[in-house]
Amino acid sequence: MTTALPAYDDLEAAYTLLRPMVRRTPVVEVAGGDLGVAGRILLKLEMLQHTGSFKARGALNTVLRMPEGTTGAVAASGGNHGAAVAWACGISGIEADVFVPATSPPEKVRRIEAYGATAHVVDGYYAAAYDASRRWAEGREVVAIHAYDAATIVAGAAGVGIEIGDQAPYARRVLVPCGGGGLYSGTALALRDRVPVIPVEPQRCPSLASALDAGGPVDIEVSGAAADSLGAARVGDHAYAVARELGAAPLLVSDDQILAARRVLWEQCRLLAEPGGVTALAAVLAGLVDVRDGETVVVVVSGANHPTIPDDVVRPVSS
Amino acid sequence: MTTALPAYDDLEAAYTLLRPMVRRTPVVEVAGGDLGVAGRILLKLEMLQHTGSFKARGALNTVLRMPEGTTGAVAASGGNHGAAVAWACGISGIEADVFVPATSPPEKVRRIEAYGATAHVVDGYYAAAYDASRRWAEGREVVAIHAYDAATIVAGAAGVGIEIGDQAPYARRVLVPCGGGGLYSGTALALRDRVPVIPVEPQRCPSLASALDAGGPVDIEVSGAAADSLGAARVGDHAYAVARELGAAPLLVSDDQILAARRVLWEQCRLLAEPGGVTALAAVLAGLVDVRDGETVVVVVSGANHPTIPDDVVRPVSS
Ligand SMILES: Cc1ncc(COP(=O)(O)O)c(C=O)c1O
Ligand SMILES: Cc1ncc(COP(=O)(O)O)c(C=O)c1O
Repeated sequence: MTTALPAYDDLEAAYTLLRPMVRRTPVVEVAGGDLGVAGRILLKLEMLQHTGSFKARGALNTVLRMPEGTTGAVAASGGNHGAAVAWACGISGIEADVFVPATSPPEKVRRIEAYGATAHVVDGYYAAAYDASRRWAEGREVVAIHAYDAATIVAGAAGVGIEIGDQAPYARRVLVPCGGGGLYSGTALALRDRVPVIPVEPQRCPSLASALDAGGPVDIEVSGAAADSLGAARVGDHAYAVARELGAAPLLVSDDQILAARRVLWEQCRLLAEPGGVTALAAVLAGLVDVRDGETVVVVVSGANHPTIPDDVVRPVSS
Repeated sequence: MTTALPAYDDLEAAYTLLRPMVRRTPVVEVAGGDLGVAGRILLKLEMLQHTGSFKARGALNTVLRMPEGTTGAVAASGGNHGAAVAWACGISGIEADVFVPATSPPEKVRRIEAYGATAHVVDGYYAAAYDASRRWAEGREVVAIHAYDAATIVAGAAGVGIEIGDQAPYARRVLVPCGGGGLYSGTALALRDRVPVIPVEPQRCPSLASALDAGGPVDIEVSGAAADSLGAARVGDHAYAVARELGAAPLLVSDDQILAARRVLWEQCRLLAEPGGVTALAAVLAGLVDVRDGETVVVVVSGANHPTIPDDVVRPVSS
């Protein structure tokens, strides 16, 4: 079976449609030396996006293209896609029901509800929430919004790549966190023939690496520090097709490398990303990417929805 | 007495000297609607600067211009200038002794030491630390680096304004947090004749407003949520001279407005700034600035050195 991938025109059309409503997230250049590596690292701060992750792009692109008269949408999500769907539906006046695995941080559930959606918490990881959402949708008039494996999701996420092409035309490589592969495939399609895009997965959620080994998407076990955002049990057909076509070789990072990257990002740049948001940075810090002097590598920081809200933000400082 | 203000050429020379070593901090455009106001807000993310605040610019400019053969430097600081001096001296192989008021968060003291300087904690607010630093320096061969009232500090901070001129040529207004006024005066000089720069002080640290009322810098009482960074007891002569010359009218924000701004910045943009870093944003959110539809206002977020390191960054997530 071949998956029809969106054409470059589709990516551009999505970008034009979304541009007035999503944030063009900035990049900040950090000297490699600050991070213990050579070259220059351009951090693409997609964590500043609406809803705190790049997922807002794909969700809004999907909602804006739903059939006229649609009144309800349903999604399953580790949390970030759910918040993005809730936000996009809120803008568009559509009711959203979001199924979240019990393994997701309560903070993510709170956000989904804050955007006006109904959250349903389901025991297990993402796959369990997905199944529950499908059962719930049966017989109801709702549009299901997949978290990563849909052409509109991929085309929306491609905006990250379109902006990078503009912000860092001289980049040698782009690294992105990869779960189900919507971010990876959108970014890679937007930048194809221009710069290699490398997906980075947690060792404990290797859905793309496993698919490439097996010759096609397969169900895997997921766990670990980034499972709430990167814990897709099966990589998307879109991502698999893009990775095959472009010959991508995913990098794998350990939980310790992920948590260390999070800390370094805070220490060096005062940015507080979530574990799933920093796998690409973790690969650079762990020396898995060969960055040479004078070269620029773009690292996408994809989200910042935390296990807990940092306490001192909510608690007034005594004075 | 008239204070000799740096000329535009001095500001540009400082910028050229510093450019290879400081970060060009990005701006992110946020729709006013996301913040409950009209227009567009461009956040200038100076919190991403080395050492977590804009203070790195002035400190490095000062250290690079110290007489040849200088081996030691001394500074008094609520914390951020101290970290900046420690960092700049570390780069330049100079010993630094930093006097910090006991009212500053321990986290700031830790950072000063992490950059290799010696921290001396002194009872009271900034003025007490300043006096102690002066007594200590007597008879020692060290260069004192003022936290805000020196031409090299102002010229270094001007880089923020130079970058804003480039990143937001269409801005209608620029708002900056103001303590002793180094950031304000540098930014205002860099942008003079181009766009008005408005200093924003905490109501409980109104050093510039008091000076303008009194017809010159006066000693005031300081306290409140942002006193560790904006608690200069007396505004700088440079800042006073610039404010007089340009006819600046400082805005004043309450502690509640400051803490609310900090929370909104986290909720809307996943940025975690310190109280002193968000007074300019607080003024916008409190409606003290008249932002019209279609207009762009630049808001400098000047620092993110926190009372406490957010706990979940240091504590590994259980898996
Ligand atoms: C912060 C963050 N980064 C990366 C990803 C991975 O995205 P994708 O599933 O498109 O690979 C996710 C997915 O939820 C996410 O929330
Ligand atoms: C984060 C932050 N913002 C603003 C200021 C105010 O700077 P200035 O003293 O130059 O007015 C300071 C001073 O320490 C600071 O640390």
